[in-house]
Amino acid sequence: MSSFVFGIDIGGTTVKCGLFSVDGTLNDKWEIKTRTENEGKHILPDVAETIYKKMEEKGIKKEQVAGVGVGVPGPVMNEREVTMAVNLHWGHLKLADQLEELLGGIPVKAGNDANVAALGEMWKGGGEGTRNLIMVTLGTGVGGGIIVDGKIVTGAHGAGGEIGHACVNPAEKIQCNCGNYGCLEQVSSATGIVRLAKDILAENTEPTVLDVASVSAKDVFDGYKAQDVVAKKIVEKFASYLGNALAVFAAVLDPEVIVVGGGVSKAGEPLIQAVEKVYKKDAFLSCKETPIVLAKLDNDAGIYGAAKLVVE
Amino acid sequence: MSSFVFGIDIGGTTVKCGLFSVDGTLNDKWEIKTRTENEGKHILPDVAETIYKKMEEKGIKKEQVAGVGVGVPGPVMNEREVTMAVNLHWGHLKLADQLEELLGGIPVKAGNDANVAALGEMWKGGGEGTRNLIMVTLGTGVGGGIIVDGKIVTGAHGAGGEIGHACVNPAEKIQCNCGNYGCLEQVSSATGIVRLAKDILAENTEPTVLDVASVSAKDVFDGYKAQDVVAKKIVEKFASYLGNALAVFAAVLDPEVIVVGGGVSKAGEPLIQAVEKVYKKDAFLSCKETPIVLAKLDNDAGIYGAAKLVVE
Repeated sequence: MSSFVFGIDIGGTTVKCGLFSVDGTLNDKWEIKTRTENEGKHILPDVAETIYKKMEEKGIKKEQVAGVGVGVPGPVMNEREVTMAVNLHWGHLKLADQLEELLGGIPVKAGNDANVAALGEMWKGGGEGTRNLIMVTLGTGVGGGIIVDGKIVTGAHGAGGEIGHACVNPAEKIQCNCGNYGCLEQVSSATGIVRLAKDILAENTEPTVLDVASVSAKDVFDGYKAQDVVAKKIVEKFASYLGNALAVFAAVLDPEVIVVGGGVSKAGEPLIQAVEKVYKKDAFLSCKETPIVLAKLDNDAGIYGAAKLVVE
Repeated sequence: MSSFVFGIDIGGTTVKCGLFSVDGTLNDKWEIKTRTENEGKHILPDVAETIYKKMEEKGIKKEQVAGVGVGVPGPVMNEREVTMAVNLHWGHLKLADQLEELLGGIPVKAGNDANVAALGEMWKGGGEGTRNLIMVTLGTGVGGGIIVDGKIVTGAHGAGGEIGHACVNPAEKIQCNCGNYGCLEQVSSATGIVRLAKDILAENTEPTVLDVASVSAKDVFDGYKAQDVVAKKIVEKFASYLGNALAVFAAVLDPEVIVVGGGVSKAGEPLIQAVEKVYKKDAFLSCKETPIVLAKLDNDAGIYGAAKLVVE
């Protein structure tokens, strides 16, 4: 009987690995280095090797492994093929085919890392018990994942859940990394919050704990919690964009829950409350009470979600 | 062998009915009156009666009918239960249970009418050949439907696809029918376009064919086609909202196609081009070439989509 699954989250620096029971219990987790040299051709063999080693260590036979799920920093089509993954130095790659061969036929499925993290949060995190959610990850950039009826919405070009690049401010004059102007990422990521802060601090005349030269997203939220009036202004600006965007997304999908993760979300409940205030104003009546919650799995969301790819 | 399905689209005035082959060929269509009196309790028996009559007329036996799909102007949960349908004078109703009983066990599925129209356009209309689309219906109001992997996204409260109430202009001072401020419907419906037109005409000093007292959405697009400068300004304003909103929705879902229907879409390709110009500017790179097309099925989208509910 198949009792175990592996969840593998391949990042540009490390590969996070998890051994799960099919019920979602994490039995073991570890990391290996991501060897991106030679167009990343060592990565899948390294993954296969670490899985075999772990099976040997735990005395797990191949028949006991239901599958291996893999999260990748790039678009993934049909849960099998990577279109490209710049940080891994991969071009187009038939990931599932190759890894299945390396693993002697153990079934493999793959997904985009941000999408897979959303699936993880649905399974055992902030969205546990739901099958329809929007996850937004506020990190250096803004990522996301959309889950409908328990499945990742991949989209026609693998761009499902690219909510960081929803254009929320068409009047924006500064270009986003993606080439467009006015992306959510430009005002809701850690970097975006710093930019909002610098703009507001540059024109500020009120006393504040914030320093325009060194301000970080964390400083802003710390200041906000300490009731700094300028920090409050910055957080309200940030929340006006993010809360509105989430309300728009909810009018499209009417999710059961909205999960907020990523480094910026460490600011915790005060951030949620600021965003929720705008969300409740702008959301369609039926969706106003939809919970907005913090992600729970932190950096493990990827391995949980990857594992969930191969659990029905 | 089951060869036929019925698609029933219940509106406040008439019930549109279609007899389809399971391959999507429309064999016959007709209408009956919607009798909303007595809390609409005659509606389902009338539907059952007209189906039985049509089966008799065509010599179709019960075993030949794979199912009956029904579109309803209100939220529908689990393809079976109507939460409420104000225009039909219905409160909560176990539609599928009741109609299956009236039809001697023929399987019934139901969906929200705007969502079902989107499914119809996917099956045999502007989105034929796709399984992932966004449909926006520009009528007196703005409706919509989201199809992911061939299925309607109903949402947690039946509000999936309520894109007319996406808040696209949080600074709006006039209230939408839904109670919020700044809904897409307020600037993209026939009514919304008239409002934009009146605002622009009130401050206009340039020569124009448009008359502030009597202007309609059709006048605006007719003027636009005739290169009236003021009409152009109005259409560009309308397109700035709708094109941006569609780009935001595409960043969430990355659909294969975006279908535009409803009375306003009669303006045709010039409307599409105006919207597309803004869409291409604001859409995420991978989605910039996603086609925006006109709906094809007109008022039959509902019966096609209802029929598709019961075709696998």
